[in-house]
Parts: sequence; C-alpha cells; structure tokens
Amino acid sequence: MIDNKAFYKLSYGLYIVSSVSEDKLNAQIANTVFQITSDPATVAVSINKKNLTYEYIQKSKLIGVSALSLETPMDQIGRFGFKSGRDINKFEGISYKLGETGVPIVLDNAVSYFELQVEKEIDVLTHTIFICKVVNAELIKDVDAMTYKYYQDIKRGKILKPAVSYDENKVESINATSDMPQYICSVCGYIYDPAVGDPDSGILPGTLFENIPDNWTCPICGVTKDNFEKMA
Amino acid sequence: MIDNKAFYKLSYGLYIVSSVSEDKLNAQIANTVFQITSDPATVAVSINKKNLTYEYIQKSKLIGVSALSLETPMDQIGRFGFKSGRDINKFEGISYKLGETGVPIVLDNAVSYFELQVEKEIDVLTHTIFICKVVNAELIKDVDAMTYKYYQDIKRGKILKPAVSYDENKVESINATSDMPQYICSVCGYIYDPAVGDPDSGILPGTLFENIPDNWTCPICGVTKDNFEKMA
Repeated sequence: MIDNKAFYKLSYGLYIVSSVSEDKLNAQIANTVFQITSDPATVAVSINKKNLTYEYIQKSKLIGVSALSLETPMDQIGRFGFKSGRDINKFEGISYKLGETGVPIVLDNAVSYFELQVEKEIDVLTHTIFICKVVNAELIKDVDAMTYKYYQDIKRGKILKPAVSYDENKVESINATSDMPQYICSVCGYIYDPAVGDPDSGILPGTLFENIPDNWTCPICGVTKDNFEKMA
Repeated sequence: MIDNKAFYKLSYGLYIVSSVSEDKLNAQIANTVFQITSDPATVAVSINKKNLTYEYIQKSKLIGVSALSLETPMDQIGRFGFKSGRDINKFEGISYKLGETGVPIVLDNAVSYFELQVEKEIDVLTHTIFICKVVNAELIKDVDAMTYKYYQDIKRGKILKPAVSYDENKVESINATSDMPQYICSVCGYIYDPAVGDPDSGILPGTLFENIPDNWTCPICGVTKDNFEKMA
C-alpha cells in the first residue's frame, strides 16, 4: 500500500539549477540537490528529462546551483519554476554571473552557490540523477535557506510572506475577513487568500478576489485571473 | 575555491534507515533520502560503505526508512546515529515492526515510513546511492518532520528541546547563567550549555558542567563526561 501523504514527510531544499549550451543559458527550480561525499566534494542533482535545463546539462555537463533565502519572492520562484526557457529568457532582469566554468549562477536571493561538473549520470525513468564534482562553492549570505516545505507553507498561506510587515490592526482585519472565499490557480496551485492578499503586487490584505484588477497575474506562475477557480 | 560553509545551505531531513540480514536487524541515522520519481514511486538513499546497515542492505536489498518527528529525543538520535550495531542491539527497548518485506521499521517518533526494494546501486567513492522501488509507504502522524537543520539547531542550543516547558522565571535564570562556560563533546560535537542544562537527563538549567554527576553521559552519543572539552 502506498500512501502519497507519507512522501510529504521527506525534506528538501529549494534551488535554482542552471546550465549552459554554447551561448544559451537556462535555469529552473529543483528541490533534489544533495551532497553525497565530502572529500572530494560530490553533489547529486536530479532533473526531469523533459526540461530544457536537462538538455543543456546533457550538452555542457555543467550545472550551477543557487540555494535560495527565505526572502525569495514568489515571482522569482514562479519565473524559474513554472515557465519554460523555451518561451521566455528567464535571466532577463535577474542578477547573475558566469562562473569560472562558464555556467550561469543566479545571484538574486542566493545564500550560497555551487559550480558542478557532471561525472556520472543515472537514468531513473522520468529523471536523471547527475553525480557531480564540485568545482566551486561559495557562501554569499549566512542566513537560513528556503526549504521546499517553507515554500509550500507560504503557497498555502500558512506563513505570511516575510516582506509583509505586521501590526495589530492588520491582524484584526485579517481575522475579520477570514470567511471570504479563497481562489486557487489551476496552473500552479497557488491559493489566493483575501485575508493575506498579495502585498508584493500591491493587493492589500482584505481584498476580495473579485476586486483584484484584471491585469493582476498569479504571483507564482504568471497566468491571468481567469485561470483561478473558487474554492469550496 | 570550495567554501564548506556553502554546503550548510543545502537542506536535508533526518531519518532512521534500517535493514535486515537473515535474522539480524540494524538501523542508522541518515539525512540523504529523496524521492526521484512519482509514478512509479522511486526513492534514493545514500549510505556510507563503512556502516553495518550498508552491509545488510547489500545482502537483503531491502531498506526501511522512518521519517522522524520534531519531538524525537536526542538519545534516540544518538543511539541510531552515533553507536554501531556491531557493539549494541539498537532495537532493544525501541518500538518497531517487521514490514511485509521483512525489513524492520522503527515506529518510535516516526511520522511516516517506507519499505524499499533496491533496484540499482551507484558507487560514489565513500558512499553508495541505492535507487529503490517503494513497496510500502504509510503516514503515521501528520505533524512536521525533523530536518537536519532543526537537529543541528537543537544540538547547538539554538532551539530548546520541545520537551522543556517554559516559564518567565526560568527565562530569567537562563539569562543570569549565560556567562557560565560551555563544554563540547569531542565525539559528536554536542555542546553542553549550563543555561539550557540537559533536562531529559534530570540536569536542570543553571547547572555548571562541573556539578553534573560523574555517571552522566552525552545525551547524543553516550560517551562519559571526560570526553568533554571546555570551550573558549
């Protein structure tokens, strides 16, 4: 018997994994990055074979990994996690540098980064696990790293976004509006909670979904309002 | 350039990984357990080749994984993480069951568990990554799982153990004693902080290291007082 809820108790980080193919750059969100051995340092990265980043890694055998801070805004996660490099240039407006191997390293909200050289590839059905030598590893900011659970908790509104400042009056108004209906994004699962609003986009706590301007887009995956469904 | 502090920003869980060899059982702490594919469910587990559990996995090709709760006491982690099954029977006094494959599943403080069958082995220097089919997965208790970071924060005294109850007077006494010297365990790195004490072993906050009874042992790895060094 396999209960999928059992898997929710496995813990992961949240990373931007990047690669390069000739002069083209791409990057994506991944949660499966882990150190296997310490001397010499070896790191494993699991990537879905359908992704463009996977194709680039196949060509260059180079991987960049940025571990993200808790303050990473949802639109940065949405851009790298829910959009494809086949449709947009994900690096537009993003701070990054080319590492010594030539792989791009996303710097916005990164707490540390790694440059990896693929040494072994393990085919596991839909995914490939890349076993990599660590060429370069740098700490950028010694603050807590984003975990997959923290990201999910934000998405479900269990944690208010760190950018939101808090005062007693706001807490009262949140309580007062907590019976307003929530709406879920059919693309990425983001839940719009009127009690929380979407302050990063100027939508204050207490704003009904109906009253959000029509040009507002999902803070995670960028789709328009008509992709949202009212929750029961 | 490789800065080891960069690796501290990778996130992990904390698990008890078990195996069986004929009628012998063993288990150890591991932090590298990851789901790789969802359909069919595949999980990767990385194990140090020196460990007894590794030998058992080699023989039976069976692995049990228990994800632990935040309330897991340090002595349970110490027993499975810092002692060898070559010296003690780690299952003595521990609740467990044999799964349908015959692998032991530790139930004490488990929030979910998995029974795995090894399908592929990847040699990575000091470690082997076992790619496994999930035979059985069950949620036991829907509460937060222990992460490696949470465990480290407890160990360093950044988080008080959840079992410790809190009141204003205690907080005052903790502040009053915060200049008492700390001692570090040379075996496992546990830091004895007099401000925190070791309440699980009956050592109250405010107890100087010198005043701890001689039969006290490290709550993590079980070594005696003389293995501790005064910190600068």
